[in-house]
Amino acid sequence: MSGALLPAEIAQAVQFDRDGLVAAIAQQHDSGEVLMLAWMNRDALSETLATGEVCYWSRSRQRLWRKGETSGQRQLLIELRVDCDGDSLLLLVDQTGVACHTGRRSCFFRAWRDGRLETIAEVLVDPKSLYGF
Amino acid sequence: MSGALLPAEIAQAVQFDRDGLVAAIAQQHDSGEVLMLAWMNRDALSETLATGEVCYWSRSRQRLWRKGETSGQRQLLIELRVDCDGDSLLLLVDQTGVACHTGRRSCFFRAWRDGRLETIAEVLVDPKSLYGF
Repeated sequence: MSGALLPAEIAQAVQFDRDGLVAAIAQQHDSGEVLMLAWMNRDALSETLATGEVCYWSRSRQRLWRKGETSGQRQLLIELRVDCDGDSLLLLVDQTGVACHTGRRSCFFRAWRDGRLETIAEVLVDPKSLYGF
Repeated sequence: MSGALLPAEIAQAVQFDRDGLVAAIAQQHDSGEVLMLAWMNRDALSETLATGEVCYWSRSRQRLWRKGETSGQRQLLIELRVDCDGDSLLLLVDQTGVACHTGRRSCFFRAWRDGRLETIAEVLVDPKSLYGF
């Protein structure tokens, strides 16, 4: 999939930053759990809407990042929402397996409790089994 | 409140970007509703932890933005969570009234449905009554 067009109304509503990116929050559609925050450029957003599978822009790798392309831990898009000033997106998704590269369901697995960062979620899948290293 | 120190473990865990900011998602702690995404610098994060009331950094006004300071629509911090690579935060909050400056509960009130952006949440409070203009 490439070269999908961004619908005009979305293109008008979304404000990409100086790097051409917009922040996207992924939330599990039924449980409400916030899974991760990542970034989309215009192409990633176009592809996500066209395919119904979430595609981000990897800032570290500087390329499209089709969520789950290596790990199989895909995100099916249930609904896209845009915030009031258009500079962040909320993706209601159905997450296959785990969202976090550490093998945890959510990337937000460290909580500030009693003056220290506590790990509050367990590793559900060995990352080695996801990435083959 | 000013000059609060950021706890060392948080300072080490959080990766501020080239502008000295980190993305912060506010989620209503009990309902799971994602309310907004905004930004914190080191001072905003310090103050939030010290006071238990959420303080952001306003990129448009270039100053600390104590959520609700004008509108009264404050966010009580229930728990702070940090993601796997430390470049985004999840704030579990108890939101007084509405989070959005439009008078809606959540800033994510536009959903992409059937090929158009649909407004899915109603205005609960007249913005004029919040901001006095």
